[in-house]
Amino acid sequence: MKAAEKRVQVLRNYMADKGLDLCVLSSPENMQYFSGFQAITYTRPILFVVTGTETHLIVPALEEDHASLGSTVVEHLHVYYEHPEKAIGNPSAFEILKSLGAKKANPSVGAEFSALSLKNAGMYESWGWKLQDISPQVTVWRAVKDELEKEYIREAGKLCQFAFGVSLDNGRAGITELEFEQFGTTALYNKISGNYPYVFSSPNCFTPSGVERTNMPHVFSGNRKFEKGDMVIHVRKPAINGYHGELERSFFIGKPNPKAEHAFLAMLEAQTAVMDAIRPGVTCSQMDKVGRDVLRRHGYADYAIHRIGHGQGLGRHEEPYLIYNSDLVLQEGMVFTVEPGIYIPGVGGFRHSDTLIITKDGYENTTEFKRELRDLILD
Amino acid sequence: MKAAEKRVQVLRNYMADKGLDLCVLSSPENMQYFSGFQAITYTRPILFVVTGTETHLIVPALEEDHASLGSTVVEHLHVYYEHPEKAIGNPSAFEILKSLGAKKANPSVGAEFSALSLKNAGMYESWGWKLQDISPQVTVWRAVKDELEKEYIREAGKLCQFAFGVSLDNGRAGITELEFEQFGTTALYNKISGNYPYVFSSPNCFTPSGVERTNMPHVFSGNRKFEKGDMVIHVRKPAINGYHGELERSFFIGKPNPKAEHAFLAMLEAQTAVMDAIRPGVTCSQMDKVGRDVLRRHGYADYAIHRIGHGQGLGRHEEPYLIYNSDLVLQEGMVFTVEPGIYIPGVGGFRHSDTLIITKDGYENTTEFKRELRDLILD
Repeated sequence: MKAAEKRVQVLRNYMADKGLDLCVLSSPENMQYFSGFQAITYTRPILFVVTGTETHLIVPALEEDHASLGSTVVEHLHVYYEHPEKAIGNPSAFEILKSLGAKKANPSVGAEFSALSLKNAGMYESWGWKLQDISPQVTVWRAVKDELEKEYIREAGKLCQFAFGVSLDNGRAGITELEFEQFGTTALYNKISGNYPYVFSSPNCFTPSGVERTNMPHVFSGNRKFEKGDMVIHVRKPAINGYHGELERSFFIGKPNPKAEHAFLAMLEAQTAVMDAIRPGVTCSQMDKVGRDVLRRHGYADYAIHRIGHGQGLGRHEEPYLIYNSDLVLQEGMVFTVEPGIYIPGVGGFRHSDTLIITKDGYENTTEFKRELRDLILD
Repeated sequence: MKAAEKRVQVLRNYMADKGLDLCVLSSPENMQYFSGFQAITYTRPILFVVTGTETHLIVPALEEDHASLGSTVVEHLHVYYEHPEKAIGNPSAFEILKSLGAKKANPSVGAEFSALSLKNAGMYESWGWKLQDISPQVTVWRAVKDELEKEYIREAGKLCQFAFGVSLDNGRAGITELEFEQFGTTALYNKISGNYPYVFSSPNCFTPSGVERTNMPHVFSGNRKFEKGDMVIHVRKPAINGYHGELERSFFIGKPNPKAEHAFLAMLEAQTAVMDAIRPGVTCSQMDKVGRDVLRRHGYADYAIHRIGHGQGLGRHEEPYLIYNSDLVLQEGMVFTVEPGIYIPGVGGFRHSDTLIITKDGYENTTEFKRELRDLILD
C-alpha cells in the first residue's frame, strides 16, 4: 500500500472509532498529507474530504489538470468555477462540500479546529454539521514520518549541506548578507535544474550578521556587509515535495573575540549534549533540559530564549517541540531540529541547527556539516 | 501622521462606532498592516491589540529586539517566554491577551473571523468575550493603498521588470524551467544585495513550459527543458516590505504554431481591452466582462477558467477580485493585476499579468514590460 493510501486508512480507522461520517482537510499541509496533492495555494479553497468509503478532492478549475496527475488516493475530483460560462448553474466549493455531507442529517464531521476559520466553522454549523476537532490527532500522526517523508527530508538535508557549503566557501568581509546567501542559492538552483527528481520550492534562507542582528533570531536578510570580527548565523531551509530540511550554523569573519568564542563553544557543547542523548524513549522536556543545563553551567540561562528544537516536515516548524514543559516521548521516525541558541546583548547571537530523524537507537543526521569553531572561522 | 498611525486611527473610529472595547489582529498580514511590524512567522503567535486609547504588541522573546525597532505605533510591548527561567511565573501569549480584555466584564472584541481559528475563538469565548467580525471591514481598508504601500508596490514592480528582463535575455531551447528563473533570480539578489533600501523576501516565481504544463496555471517549476516551438508562462512575484509585485508573460521558444499564435493574440487583446477600460467608477464585474467578451468573440470562453484579475498588496492574491459576480466599484488607490488567461487542451496556456495602481483617471502600470508577440519570440 502506498504512503497516501495508508494515511487515509489510518484516518478511516479513527473515524470509525469516533463515529465520524466525514472528515474535511482544509489546511494546505494536511490536505497534501492525506491526498498527496501539492498545490501552490493562494486564496481559492482546496478541500480533501474522506468518508468511510470514498475520497473527494475539491479544486478550482485552474487546478483541474494538475490535480488529475498522479494522486493514488483521490477517487472523486470535483471542480468549481469562476467564469460565468460554468460558474452559473454549477455549485461553488462550499456547495460541493455541503452536498458531500448531505447523505445524513446532522452528520458528525471531523475538522481541523486549529486551522478552520471561525467564518467557515459558522457556515458548517449552519448546515447542521456537528464538528469534532481532529487537529490533535492529525498532529500525532504527522509527527512520525513514513519512509516516503523521510526520503524527502533526507534530500532536503542534502540540499542544505550543498548550498551552505557553497556560501561558506565564498564568505568573506565586504559582502552583504544577501550576497552571501546568493552564492548557495545560485548553486542550488543550478544543481536542481540539472536533473533533480523532486519538486523543489523556495530556497528559504536568512542570514543575520553582527552583534545586533544575530541577536534577532528571525529576521529578513539585508544589505549589511560582513565586517572583520563579525559573528553570522546562516539559516537554510529548502523544501522537497513540501518537506523541509533545516541547517543553521554560526560562523565568524576572522578570529572571534573571547566573549563570542566562549558563547559559541557553550552553544556547541549544548547541541552536542542533546545529540548525544537523543533517542526513542526520552521526553521532549528532558532534551530541552540537557541542552539548557550546559548553557546554565556557562552562565547563559537567561539568554537561551527559545526551545531547544522543533518538529519539522510539511511545516517549517511543527509539533512536537523540544521544550521544558512537554512530556511527550520521542519515537522512531520523528524528526527534530536540535538548535540551542543564545542571544547576549552586546556580544551577539549563536545557534547551530541540525535536522535529525530519530532512529531505533539514536538518530540519523540529515544535515551533517562542519560544526567546530576551527572550521567556522573565515579569513 | 505616519501611515501606521493613520491606520490605527481609522480602526479606532470604527471601534467607537461599533462599540468595540478592543480589537485583536492575529493574521500575519493584518498584524503587520496595523502595527508596522514585519516578522518571519512560524508557529509562535504574534498579536496586535488596539483599544480606544492604547496599542499592545505581544511577541515571543525571540522577537523582542526585533519588535522594538522602529515601529511608530506600538506603545506597549509584551513578551512571552519559552525558557523555564522566565516562562514559569510569567504569562503566556494568551494569558497576556486575556488580561488586556479584563478591564471590562464580557468585553466586545473585534476579531478576524476569516483568519481566527475555531480553536482560539473557543478560548476567547470561554473568557466571556463577545466576538464581532472585523474581517470584511479590514478587507475594505486594505483594498485602498496609501502612499507608503504604493511606494513598496512600485519598487516590487521594478524588481519584476528587471528580473524578468534578465531571464528573458537568457531564455533559449535546452535550458530548464528552473534554470530560466535562476538567471533573473541571481541578478535580482545581486541588485538588491548592493544597496536596496527595503526588506526583500523571496523571489517567488514559477515557469511552466510546453502545452501540458502551461495548461496548469499554478504549478511548481521543474526540470523540463524548453524545446523549439514551446510556449512558456513565466510568473514573478517578489515582495518588498511584504508588498508584492506581479509580472507574468507568455512567450515562445521559436515561432509559434498558428493555433498558439491565435490564442496568444486573443489573450493580448483581452488584456489590452481591460487596461483601456480600467479606472475609478467601473465595477469588478464590468472589467471581467470586458476581457471575457474579447475571448468569447475568439471562441475561447470555455478556456478562460479564472477571473480576470485579483487585488494585491500584503497578500499575493487578495480581495477585491475582478470577477463576474462582484459589483464592487473600483477606487483610486486600489491595486489589481489584469491577467486574462486561456488554457486550451492540446494547444497550451497563455497569460500576461500586469500590476496596476488605479489612479484618479486611469491607472499606473507598475510592471511595464514588453507585451507584443514580436517581442516575445525567442530564437
